[in-house]
Amino acid sequence: MAKRIKGTTPREDGYRMPAEWERQDMVYMVWPERAGWPNYCLDVRRAYCRVAEAISKHTPVTMIVSGRQYPDARVHLSDDIRVIEISNNDCWFRDSGPTFLVNDRGGVRACDWEFNAWGGLYDGLWFPWDLDDLVPRKLCEIEGIDSYRTKGFVLEGGSISVDGEGTVLTTEMCLLSPGRNPHMTKEGIERMLCEYLNCRKVLWLKDGIDPWETNGHVDDVAVFVRPGEVACIYTDDPAHPFYKVAQDAYQTLLGMTDAKGRRLKVHKVPLTKEPIYYKGAETAEWDCLDEEKPADGGLCAASYVNFLISNGAVFVPQYDDPNDGCALEAIREIFPDHEVVGIHTRDIVYGGGNIHCITQNRPAAGEV
Amino acid sequence: MAKRIKGTTPREDGYRMPAEWERQDMVYMVWPERAGWPNYCLDVRRAYCRVAEAISKHTPVTMIVSGRQYPDARVHLSDDIRVIEISNNDCWFRDSGPTFLVNDRGGVRACDWEFNAWGGLYDGLWFPWDLDDLVPRKLCEIEGIDSYRTKGFVLEGGSISVDGEGTVLTTEMCLLSPGRNPHMTKEGIERMLCEYLNCRKVLWLKDGIDPWETNGHVDDVAVFVRPGEVACIYTDDPAHPFYKVAQDAYQTLLGMTDAKGRRLKVHKVPLTKEPIYYKGAETAEWDCLDEEKPADGGLCAASYVNFLISNGAVFVPQYDDPNDGCALEAIREIFPDHEVVGIHTRDIVYGGGNIHCITQNRPAAGEV
Repeated sequence: MAKRIKGTTPREDGYRMPAEWERQDMVYMVWPERAGWPNYCLDVRRAYCRVAEAISKHTPVTMIVSGRQYPDARVHLSDDIRVIEISNNDCWFRDSGPTFLVNDRGGVRACDWEFNAWGGLYDGLWFPWDLDDLVPRKLCEIEGIDSYRTKGFVLEGGSISVDGEGTVLTTEMCLLSPGRNPHMTKEGIERMLCEYLNCRKVLWLKDGIDPWETNGHVDDVAVFVRPGEVACIYTDDPAHPFYKVAQDAYQTLLGMTDAKGRRLKVHKVPLTKEPIYYKGAETAEWDCLDEEKPADGGLCAASYVNFLISNGAVFVPQYDDPNDGCALEAIREIFPDHEVVGIHTRDIVYGGGNIHCITQNRPAAGEV
Repeated sequence: MAKRIKGTTPREDGYRMPAEWERQDMVYMVWPERAGWPNYCLDVRRAYCRVAEAISKHTPVTMIVSGRQYPDARVHLSDDIRVIEISNNDCWFRDSGPTFLVNDRGGVRACDWEFNAWGGLYDGLWFPWDLDDLVPRKLCEIEGIDSYRTKGFVLEGGSISVDGEGTVLTTEMCLLSPGRNPHMTKEGIERMLCEYLNCRKVLWLKDGIDPWETNGHVDDVAVFVRPGEVACIYTDDPAHPFYKVAQDAYQTLLGMTDAKGRRLKVHKVPLTKEPIYYKGAETAEWDCLDEEKPADGGLCAASYVNFLISNGAVFVPQYDDPNDGCALEAIREIFPDHEVVGIHTRDIVYGGGNIHCITQNRPAAGEV
């Protein structure tokens, strides 16, 4: 039976968070059902289905769904997708899910971070989040995976990117935000990351592009694509709302070295040509209360680096934007040996994230 | 991913329902939470925990629980018990669960019978039963087990007992009851049993001891204990309310031969010395509405043959009755090579069944 590991940390036990390009056994997602999604979730669900079906061509996909929505999910997903029931508050499993770990003998464990809906009662996005916070424990018990629990340490998977070789990339805007771990110093947070991800060096970017939502998750800004190399959002257009964040991140990364002392190679990935805003015409049709709708003209955290790497494929958001094609092209150049798959997910970004935010990859287990 | 198998039957595919004494990988139970249980379920839960912990010494146990009750179940069960969330209507998993099947290459599949709460709208015990009817499908998807679905054919696991060698024992009272499959003839029902259990001979007893509840499930009357041998309830006391059913079953079994032509050896297992009735003093303390309480003095279907055989152990109900000890002794004589474990489960029989009714065993998978 799956156990809660007490008294030791992943570093002490020889477990580390692998890079996303390492072999994966499974990708988990959570079925969207929360009120407040556009069009009573229907377009969003279609987009989730597109993402799940595309990934399942490369990696087995398990969709987690509430009991109430199980029949809907089962009907709308193909037989290739495994559907399992777990109660939840929302559907951003990169953030509410566990971070899976491996050791060098093929063992797989999980880190079950405390989750507080991106800021708890300080600036979290909803209340309660108790069901989301239980999902990793329930999932690990279903799958028979032992887990660590960081009671008192809040973290979301979207706020970190690792190279699997000792380096973790994150943002100050998120990890130092008062809604996460205000009782801890920056050094204390670094120690927690290093203990639980088994890293030796934390690279700090300053800001993310969505301070109002995830408090600036790094997976919308810059992510590792192979050892010593990162993909970073980029634009030359000073009028773009993400111009300053993108320029700062790019310049900062150019001056950084990883845990192995390598100077980072930084790949530019364009932002959307046009910022994506909620439009009045769109929100008028949303089946939710007016007070749940975003302010007309609200800015969306649209980023092409919010992709998922999984078993030789890269799944990239597409927004119906003129830069969709050149973003795909830039990512193909970064991953010449991967199949790069664009998926139309504009409906998902209305909820605050994209393909990376809604997936959680589990590394491959080997002979233990 | 687990599949629904369409167009073939277990018999055609070489799968059969194994006998309970064959090797098992897992025993499933469902956590009790339904209103109407004595004492707001607390005594019942304690009894369920006793059963689960006892079995887990011999066979891994998975407890299925609703999301609402997950924390309760997780806290009250030891770490040896796996707890997984699946929505349900009630907790008699012998009947609402799948029947697991094996082939001779170590493959495991499941038969997902239609379940209608022991009689549907005709004389079923409650409405709705939709969540219970979905549990086997969800469980098979979690476990990665392919399943057959008998849409239009209602059956509960407690209404059959097999020898694993081609014989199935059942009762007319249950399988021919108007609330199950009134559109089918007795011969049609026999064909279904033979196709889905992969049996060649159906042995029909007439009645069970609880016409008002399960319509007379066989697992309260007589069950296979090894090839060619059954255990049967027995009493010499004509005043015992189950005297006639027990005598009829015993005499009928003595004249029967199994699928291999062996005349059955019939082991007598005593009934409780005193019939077990709900007593007014007990029901007065139950935390449920008066209309949910059984009529004062209602008879309980207490039977010692409602035991579970699992991996070298036999788990036997105990009722605080003078015959508890001689029932255990009779069962020890039947199973000289097994550990025979008595568990106090009087609180469970108030709900209509006992250890066999609340468990569902999954046979061992091998190299396929």
